[in-house]
Amino acid sequence: MQKQKVLINGERLKRTLEEFADFGRTPNNGVTRLALSEEDRLARNYFRSCCEDLGLEVKVDDMGNMYATLAGTEDKPPIVIGSHLDSVKKGGRFDGVLGVIAGLEVVRTLIDHNIKPKVPITIANITNEEGARFEPSMMASGVLSGKFDKAKMLQSTDVEGVTFGEALRSIGYEGNETNRLKEASAFVEIHIEQGPILEHEKLTIGVVECVLGMCCYEIEVSGESDHAGTTPMAMRKDALFATNNLISEAREKLNQLDSDLVYTLGRLNVYPNIHTVIPNKTVFTLEARHKNPATIQKVEDIIRSLTNSPNHEGCEIKATKLWGRDTVWFDEDVVNAVEQATKTLAYPYKRMVSGAGHDAQFLQSYIPSAMVFVPSINGKSHDEDELTTWEDCEKGVNVVLETVLNLQSK
Amino acid sequence: MQKQKVLINGERLKRTLEEFADFGRTPNNGVTRLALSEEDRLARNYFRSCCEDLGLEVKVDDMGNMYATLAGTEDKPPIVIGSHLDSVKKGGRFDGVLGVIAGLEVVRTLIDHNIKPKVPITIANITNEEGARFEPSMMASGVLSGKFDKAKMLQSTDVEGVTFGEALRSIGYEGNETNRLKEASAFVEIHIEQGPILEHEKLTIGVVECVLGMCCYEIEVSGESDHAGTTPMAMRKDALFATNNLISEAREKLNQLDSDLVYTLGRLNVYPNIHTVIPNKTVFTLEARHKNPATIQKVEDIIRSLTNSPNHEGCEIKATKLWGRDTVWFDEDVVNAVEQATKTLAYPYKRMVSGAGHDAQFLQSYIPSAMVFVPSINGKSHDEDELTTWEDCEKGVNVVLETVLNLQSK
Repeated sequence: MQKQKVLINGERLKRTLEEFADFGRTPNNGVTRLALSEEDRLARNYFRSCCEDLGLEVKVDDMGNMYATLAGTEDKPPIVIGSHLDSVKKGGRFDGVLGVIAGLEVVRTLIDHNIKPKVPITIANITNEEGARFEPSMMASGVLSGKFDKAKMLQSTDVEGVTFGEALRSIGYEGNETNRLKEASAFVEIHIEQGPILEHEKLTIGVVECVLGMCCYEIEVSGESDHAGTTPMAMRKDALFATNNLISEAREKLNQLDSDLVYTLGRLNVYPNIHTVIPNKTVFTLEARHKNPATIQKVEDIIRSLTNSPNHEGCEIKATKLWGRDTVWFDEDVVNAVEQATKTLAYPYKRMVSGAGHDAQFLQSYIPSAMVFVPSINGKSHDEDELTTWEDCEKGVNVVLETVLNLQSK
Repeated sequence: MQKQKVLINGERLKRTLEEFADFGRTPNNGVTRLALSEEDRLARNYFRSCCEDLGLEVKVDDMGNMYATLAGTEDKPPIVIGSHLDSVKKGGRFDGVLGVIAGLEVVRTLIDHNIKPKVPITIANITNEEGARFEPSMMASGVLSGKFDKAKMLQSTDVEGVTFGEALRSIGYEGNETNRLKEASAFVEIHIEQGPILEHEKLTIGVVECVLGMCCYEIEVSGESDHAGTTPMAMRKDALFATNNLISEAREKLNQLDSDLVYTLGRLNVYPNIHTVIPNKTVFTLEARHKNPATIQKVEDIIRSLTNSPNHEGCEIKATKLWGRDTVWFDEDVVNAVEQATKTLAYPYKRMVSGAGHDAQFLQSYIPSAMVFVPSINGKSHDEDELTTWEDCEKGVNVVLETVLNLQSK
């Protein structure tokens, strides 16, 4: 006889998501809950009280990360379910918070059904994933995984000159280093996709295999500023014309590389930017993401080749690498556990990549990790229009629950 | 027997140009002498004292224009030599001021040689040609010629909220409307070319036939802002990609029109202008200048065709005409007098067009006008590096003198 599947309480999940959306709710039904702000403090306090209502003790570490653990029947490192409660300015009601509440709902469901896990289960709220108030993003998971230096991070300042360290103390969430997330059996993060693929392909679940590697360059084109009315076309050194040529050249070459490659020219500034003056300078960014390092290498070769472009219009072209990162592959066992859970629940899904960065990519360096994606309507995120249906949220958290139950028996 | 030619005093011209360059001199040997500023007031006062030293009375009209007239032996409308004493911020030492001092030097030379003109000669300083402090440019000549409404112009404000009218009163240069420049036999304006053509062709004098007609459009491209890492290329509506296509398309079509056409995309703003976000909007200007109205019409057709471009990348494209103006042809007789004077002096020259706007283009509507250009080194103007050689200044003013003598005998 097949055992009855345990499922989460969708109504309760929805209600909890709505409760958290009140902390920093914007007039257009979005959320502004910058890291360590008053809104973040209120959300943290409510998260703590929810955990304590379940009889869980909440521990806080020196970066303000919060952990609430449901004890297991065996003394093993915990399975961690988590994400972040902070948001960007005028962000959405799902990004981050879904992954924290998922942990809460999984634990609530286990308690409802009087299921005592063998392996302890920890719900985690990781501080300052967005980096919207204090740069960089993924700050606290970066410190946990040794990628970032804690002392430097504490000195990161917001636009008003307040340091991260000061803000952490002022909201009362500076805890003890001994509470940091150390050894763990697994880390599972459910997050909205932030892209249009799942919705477009009518799928409910993305089983995330990796976070894409990327490179980001800044390209500066220097020409000569002359009077728009008096300088014959043949005697110009127009930095915008040169830029136009370079963008065309880059797109033509990049489009031949791989259909999975994504690349973006997001920032372009023109100088002096006066309609009657020929531009003497432009500065623009070109960033590209792909799972295959060889493809990223080809992108970098193309960008560097632009500096010797024959289409320079008499301008000088410089390309500077701002940064790059390698593709992070999630733990095969945990990814498989997520896929198996999705199959068990018979939700339509695909294995996919994450083009955006997440705390899980840093934690993967010392904890076997994986991620679950749920569809973003119109691919929107970091926007008040961000939306994931309640049904998809519920199904996603059921995948997390099923994954955790799968991992129990490993 | 050929009469000995009368020539100006080159040393005195140079000295006077240097004296005026002191009013608002910048550390890099440029000039900041915004209209109706303290620097402008000092330059005006010095111009007045120079005129009064020659025994000329200086009259000021209700727009602050200054006129100093050397009486003629016959009661005829005067021949006017003039330009402007104001400059842009960090402008040069020749733009405008050369045309006013040319008048002074011509009158000084006539007095030196005890030549009493038949036709009176007026030296004019026209207020606020640049429009750098109070928009629009060519404000006072626009009022004189009925193009602009005086009441509106008096309300034009600078960045600190001071109106043109207040500034005019505060520097003591609000005169009487009855003093306005009305009927005149001719208006002759010598000005730096502000372009590279004369220097490039090793010529000394440009005999200016017209000020180019032009059109200026603003084009807005609206796409969709999505996450740079998570949105597949095929699902983007990238406003910058569309803009790049449109610029290529426009350049390809415009380059086929006429080799004399000049066009410029001087201003381009990208939104939200963040390197990790696909641009959802761009706004850019496209302006073009040509003497032939049919060519400008073709430019406008091309710009409007962009809004239906097949290369829109899913974006919407709007084009708005910001303004346009027709080509202003100078008076054939006065242009011929300038050319004849240049030939008499045996200076290498060409007939040419002005791509930039000048007071003479407005005054031409009621006074037979013409302009003389002298070379701009490297085509620079509106820049501290603006430079015209003393020798070229001297030759240019000799052309003005010879022109005025030619016109005397008409």
